[in-house]
Amino acid sequence: MPNELPATMRQIRTLVTDDGRLHLSLASVDLPEPQPHELVVRIEAAPINPSDLGLLLAAADLETATASGSPTEPVVTAEISPQVMRGLSARIGESMPVGNEGAGVVVAAGSSVEAQALLGRTVSIVGGSTYAEYRCLPAMMCLPLPEGTEPADGASCFVNPLTSLGMVETMKMEGHTALVHTAAASNLGQMLQRICTADGVPLVNIVRRPEQADVLRALGATHVCDSSAATFMDDLTSALVETGATIAFDAIGGGRQAGQILACMEAAANTTATEYSRYGSSVHKQVYIYGSLDRGPTEFNRNFGLAWGIGGWLLTPFLGKIGMEGMRRLQARVVAELTTTFASHYTDEVSLAGALSLDAIRTYARQATGQKFLIRPSLQ
Amino acid sequence: MPNELPATMRQIRTLVTDDGRLHLSLASVDLPEPQPHELVVRIEAAPINPSDLGLLLAAADLETATASGSPTEPVVTAEISPQVMRGLSARIGESMPVGNEGAGVVVAAGSSVEAQALLGRTVSIVGGSTYAEYRCLPAMMCLPLPEGTEPADGASCFVNPLTSLGMVETMKMEGHTALVHTAAASNLGQMLQRICTADGVPLVNIVRRPEQADVLRALGATHVCDSSAATFMDDLTSALVETGATIAFDAIGGGRQAGQILACMEAAANTTATEYSRYGSSVHKQVYIYGSLDRGPTEFNRNFGLAWGIGGWLLTPFLGKIGMEGMRRLQARVVAELTTTFASHYTDEVSLAGALSLDAIRTYARQATGQKFLIRPSLQ
Repeated sequence: MPNELPATMRQIRTLVTDDGRLHLSLASVDLPEPQPHELVVRIEAAPINPSDLGLLLAAADLETATASGSPTEPVVTAEISPQVMRGLSARIGESMPVGNEGAGVVVAAGSSVEAQALLGRTVSIVGGSTYAEYRCLPAMMCLPLPEGTEPADGASCFVNPLTSLGMVETMKMEGHTALVHTAAASNLGQMLQRICTADGVPLVNIVRRPEQADVLRALGATHVCDSSAATFMDDLTSALVETGATIAFDAIGGGRQAGQILACMEAAANTTATEYSRYGSSVHKQVYIYGSLDRGPTEFNRNFGLAWGIGGWLLTPFLGKIGMEGMRRLQARVVAELTTTFASHYTDEVSLAGALSLDAIRTYARQATGQKFLIRPSLQ
Repeated sequence: MPNELPATMRQIRTLVTDDGRLHLSLASVDLPEPQPHELVVRIEAAPINPSDLGLLLAAADLETATASGSPTEPVVTAEISPQVMRGLSARIGESMPVGNEGAGVVVAAGSSVEAQALLGRTVSIVGGSTYAEYRCLPAMMCLPLPEGTEPADGASCFVNPLTSLGMVETMKMEGHTALVHTAAASNLGQMLQRICTADGVPLVNIVRRPEQADVLRALGATHVCDSSAATFMDDLTSALVETGATIAFDAIGGGRQAGQILACMEAAANTTATEYSRYGSSVHKQVYIYGSLDRGPTEFNRNFGLAWGIGGWLLTPFLGKIGMEGMRRLQARVVAELTTTFASHYTDEVSLAGALSLDAIRTYARQATGQKFLIRPSLQ
């Protein structure tokens, strides 16, 4: 390992204590020596994605959050409700590193040819513990980026790109030809619109405010339905008739929208029906819930026949389904279109300590569309 | 056609009018001449199943039901809410016959060898229009019953037997090894318990009252959870740990039970977990809603990770999946075990006119477990 590497590094840690409290801190940990097949990456940029928040914040009540420690060694604590604690028993007492993905420069490499070949390269990484100054991991979990790529441009190479590509792949694998997406003006939603535009896949975007519709129309979106409009159900049904979409990916989870989508799909299917079908249309209608912007209960009226499904969707099992070859194919596309189709936009850049300020936590915990944080570990 | 057959017959009809009213009546219609491949069956017994009620009653408000006509030619009308009417546009103005299944005697046959071979036989039939004195249909839609079978014993050969067998088949096809059933003391639920006992399939029964648990225990049920008990969630979780059931068939539909089942499945999966999994267990948990005893909204809290699904389940597409050969295999078992595994019990026998009395309608519309009507068209 080169001499200039420090012996220790700082890393964000999340801990749930048995008295029902979340405890966030910056730990100082030893920088590991890479094994022959491993690399040490100096992390330059790591996004805070909605999929990081469950581990990081443990669904704690942020109204109760308090800060202590010092500016360079912040500590945040907050209370966790007993109901939430029931699902957290397996992590109580274990201080855990956080951060699903990021990008940086390979500053040390193990002795293997594969590892040595990446020394000095800018790489995207996935696999946890990216909210840290360094990350030691197997060379095969690094995605080398083209020469000259800014680490910030490669920070979000996995979660959003593979999720949005995964939605289109799932649509095809399950026999649908068009799709619906909710909270559609998000970074992920904009990626999905660019993919669908490029691939000629009809996409129905559902947004919650008129200005979000404008963002998508500027990207060339044809179908944007605003759920705050009085005509929403009619607008959505018309878009479903035009596109024939019978699968939806829903980032919201709670509330009535998943059921409304199924009801409008059923109405669209029946628009052309000439005969009464006592059990509803035989067209299978599917909603996959992949996010939880609304953590409240999901409610629906089953006014959409019997050919329907609502289920969870998660990237990892999808990647398992398409296998290593399928994943390599998707990754190659991500790298080739990194600053176009798969470009991410960040509104806030923070240091590791800055990511633990109460203001920052309360802001990114809201998961407001348009607001996205990037952690820059080199910032002080 | 033998001379003794009448020229006309009586048949229950259901009609939705464009002013939002349900209109039930006994129509007098011509008895058709059988084509070469057809039979005329004198219907002796036809069950009123929950799956008949949607077509028959059109979700009308039975509080508003009024009777008119005469004892032999009853007419019932009731109001249908505007919300329900939206889903009924394709049947407005069309007087429709009702009754999914039944049994009777072949009293006339077309000229084909297949049709002639069944003359005089007692057969089970499926395919609609069984709430009538006669039914003319293709010979291939008749299931010949063993000599000496009482028509009442063969009246429910399709819907409940194939649905309960279909649940066990679906469980196997989708990779599960044990199952959960709700409203489990029903005729169908008792059949399912007998199938599971015979086949060694672990079954978790959920009932709504202690006396219903007794019915199932008398059949040899090992796992019966009473949802009215204060310990229900713990009881269910324990039964799920013991059986490993990760698929459920739910007759209720509305309310919170589908979500509770998924939450208990997740708790059961995590009972043996040694490591914290941030997205919940990776075990896929499935609830299929096949009935609608509670027509209210379905509500759940998504406290069961991301590997889950809730969907509709209907017999017809399942039969399409297993194909003709699969269906013949299931039917052969039904005939062989007609008075044991697949025995049905009826609490009320009514004439065609009796099925249209306000008292009867309000009783069978409640779909109370333990109460089941059989229409006997020969009764006056």
